[in-house]
Amino acid sequence: MEGRASPTLLDVFSAVDTRASAFLDELMDLVRQPSISSQGIGVAECAQLLLGTMSRSGLSARLLPTHGYPVVFGERHVGNDRPTLLVYGHYDVQPVDPLDAWDSPPFEPVIRDGRIWGRGSSDNKGQHLAQLLAMRTYLYVAGELPINVKVILEGEEESSSPHLAAFVEANAETLRADLVYTSDGPIHESGRATVVLGVRGILYVELRARGANTDVHSGNRGGVVPNPAWTLVDVLHSLRRPDGTVAIDGFYDGVRPIGPLERAALDALPVDVDEFLRGYGLSRLPPPDDWGFFERLMLQPTLNVSGFSSGYGGPGMKTIIPSTATAKLDMRLVADQDPEHVFRCLVEHVRARAPDVEVVRIGAMEPSRTPLDHAYVKLIAEAVAQAHDGQPPLIVPALGGSLPDYVFTRILGLPSILVPYANADQRNHAPNENFAVERFTRGIKTFAAVMEALAR
Amino acid sequence: MEGRASPTLLDVFSAVDTRASAFLDELMDLVRQPSISSQGIGVAECAQLLLGTMSRSGLSARLLPTHGYPVVFGERHVGNDRPTLLVYGHYDVQPVDPLDAWDSPPFEPVIRDGRIWGRGSSDNKGQHLAQLLAMRTYLYVAGELPINVKVILEGEEESSSPHLAAFVEANAETLRADLVYTSDGPIHESGRATVVLGVRGILYVELRARGANTDVHSGNRGGVVPNPAWTLVDVLHSLRRPDGTVAIDGFYDGVRPIGPLERAALDALPVDVDEFLRGYGLSRLPPPDDWGFFERLMLQPTLNVSGFSSGYGGPGMKTIIPSTATAKLDMRLVADQDPEHVFRCLVEHVRARAPDVEVVRIGAMEPSRTPLDHAYVKLIAEAVAQAHDGQPPLIVPALGGSLPDYVFTRILGLPSILVPYANADQRNHAPNENFAVERFTRGIKTFAAVMEALAR
Repeated sequence: MEGRASPTLLDVFSAVDTRASAFLDELMDLVRQPSISSQGIGVAECAQLLLGTMSRSGLSARLLPTHGYPVVFGERHVGNDRPTLLVYGHYDVQPVDPLDAWDSPPFEPVIRDGRIWGRGSSDNKGQHLAQLLAMRTYLYVAGELPINVKVILEGEEESSSPHLAAFVEANAETLRADLVYTSDGPIHESGRATVVLGVRGILYVELRARGANTDVHSGNRGGVVPNPAWTLVDVLHSLRRPDGTVAIDGFYDGVRPIGPLERAALDALPVDVDEFLRGYGLSRLPPPDDWGFFERLMLQPTLNVSGFSSGYGGPGMKTIIPSTATAKLDMRLVADQDPEHVFRCLVEHVRARAPDVEVVRIGAMEPSRTPLDHAYVKLIAEAVAQAHDGQPPLIVPALGGSLPDYVFTRILGLPSILVPYANADQRNHAPNENFAVERFTRGIKTFAAVMEALAR
Repeated sequence: MEGRASPTLLDVFSAVDTRASAFLDELMDLVRQPSISSQGIGVAECAQLLLGTMSRSGLSARLLPTHGYPVVFGERHVGNDRPTLLVYGHYDVQPVDPLDAWDSPPFEPVIRDGRIWGRGSSDNKGQHLAQLLAMRTYLYVAGELPINVKVILEGEEESSSPHLAAFVEANAETLRADLVYTSDGPIHESGRATVVLGVRGILYVELRARGANTDVHSGNRGGVVPNPAWTLVDVLHSLRRPDGTVAIDGFYDGVRPIGPLERAALDALPVDVDEFLRGYGLSRLPPPDDWGFFERLMLQPTLNVSGFSSGYGGPGMKTIIPSTATAKLDMRLVADQDPEHVFRCLVEHVRARAPDVEVVRIGAMEPSRTPLDHAYVKLIAEAVAQAHDGQPPLIVPALGGSLPDYVFTRILGLPSILVPYANADQRNHAPNENFAVERFTRGIKTFAAVMEALAR
């Protein structure tokens, strides 16, 4: 019967509880192995460790080369009549600075207050280990998995996944599947689990305006030397309409209309806007005014000034005409905006108004969306509920942030669903990263339920 | 006969040449005494030294207290039928950092390549010492000065003269005179001497926009947290019209119309605009387009962004919505704009458009102008020519920069004329400050000629 856990699944849940302490030890072993991709520390060793973890979980495991650190790949084929789930995770971690802000050393994990503390505990070692341990437990209880699984664990996610797209293109056949499943990031602040169907993309550019070849005295040269800060102020101003929408011709090309399903999903998400504003010391949301809270955050693109630097920024007076002015802009893009098209439109806009201003492309990532009414969404949501005492998860049309999910949806053409396992205060990317033990075991049970749900 | 040096003056010139070496020694003694007002180093000792210099030059000298370092005051009264000249100078100097960029120690003056090298040599010790030595030599040659003189040497000019206005107000009677005479700064790049009739004032403000109480992630919060950089971009844009003029209501109130005399003076100033632009790597002057080179620099106000700081300014990507955005603006004001009025107009403008943006007044100084057709201008110009082998000086209606000249013109209501003595490459405020020996003796002769000219 749909919505109810099968006897097998209940046995798996119980076996997970019995083994919780041993599973925690295994997570601590993984956390103990540093794997900082941006600093080249321990990444290869961590990949080797995971080959063993995969094998112990019943997968045939091997390393697949990329142009950077290898992908740890594992698979178990059950039968051609079963669906194939492709699980994504990453085994590299963020740097640990500032080291003295940690209550315990980042690579000497400890259990304290019901959490495991250490770099990578929740981002992402604990979360992909949960999938592997679910397979292992399911195999122990039922003798075989209910579906085919493939697992790719990337070693460069914390360095912006520079080789993931090329890897996926080159290994499309190996990665053939029916659905992609990722656990990363936190559940909702309220404690509710979430099922996430997409992410916003990003285009990051720098606008550079130049004046004289040196800073000059604003008195001795004021009136005869142009100021690049004014140039940039005028160009930036031209990028937005008075209502706060983006004035770049073609910027909104491809934005997927928000249908009734999306509206309903957005409306179902809980938020107390007044409390949100109070928390940030704000009196109102930014324009445009007629967009709802989650529409702004998930289904509308943004044009954001991440930085504006020109001239003197210290205390008191310094009277100069700056020689340069630089603005960093990030645009969060929604399906189906194309970052390259948006970049070309921006260049065109700037060239027409300030031909001397340089537009430099710093980085880009496509948006990704899986339809809310995709058949798998309901199955996954039911599985998550089974692992959460029957409480249904929140359905999130898209995250505000950006992940390389497009490599699956756009390059492989697969539906992709994210089910985060971490506690909301996981402190990923920060000192004292942690993973609540209860969230860890909940994750293992969730993946067991997901496998079973997909077999239906 | 006008324009020709009198026999007495020729004797004075000759006596200056005879004593040049001894006069240089006296300047070196002054330079050897540090007097950095902003760091409180040696200022009082330097004031004591100058009391002696003044006495040896025939002045009755004393210290006049201010709310900071004292003014060194000296005077010599010749007769009620003679005009009284008030000479201004400053005995404090700039800091010496970076020390290792000096070819010889800043307070161990040396003569090299026809120049005296050391901090304060030209800014301003050498220039006001020239006036005192001119008096001493004139007295030696002629037995008495041709006019009454008063000398005030300030000890806080390099710290923005915070107590000068109050001092002048409190000592208006003591300072009673017919004309104020200042030697500071360099002659024209071409080597021509200049007679300067004014300065632009300044208003320096900071605009501060605030968003959330912390920087936030531009993905996780993009669309629901306002960006103060946009607020500031929009406000700054509103401050200027498309033609580059200032759009603040009331900004131009009081700007003195440019009459035919000023036009003629501006037109007589030499400039090669193409070469100027080439030197700075520029292709054109800033808007407005219909103002001449020196009109822009001397007789029109500016609105300049000295600094704009918001968010991330480092290399590569950082994706944040900044919590603050700050712009530093300096406005060079011309006679008879009132900095306080301009400040009120700016506050009004900003309040009407962005009530949350804070406008902070950082500093202000009034503009100053003495009419080009003031009777003294012609006399001074003739005197300068006498000391420069008959070559007439350039007449400069106003400097682009700002000096506290208004304390004399606006508070005391006196005409005020600047005759700079330093070589154009004096490197004041920088390492390797220097004063050409020839410019030093030229300065002494100039002041002797000025005294005699005013007696006519």
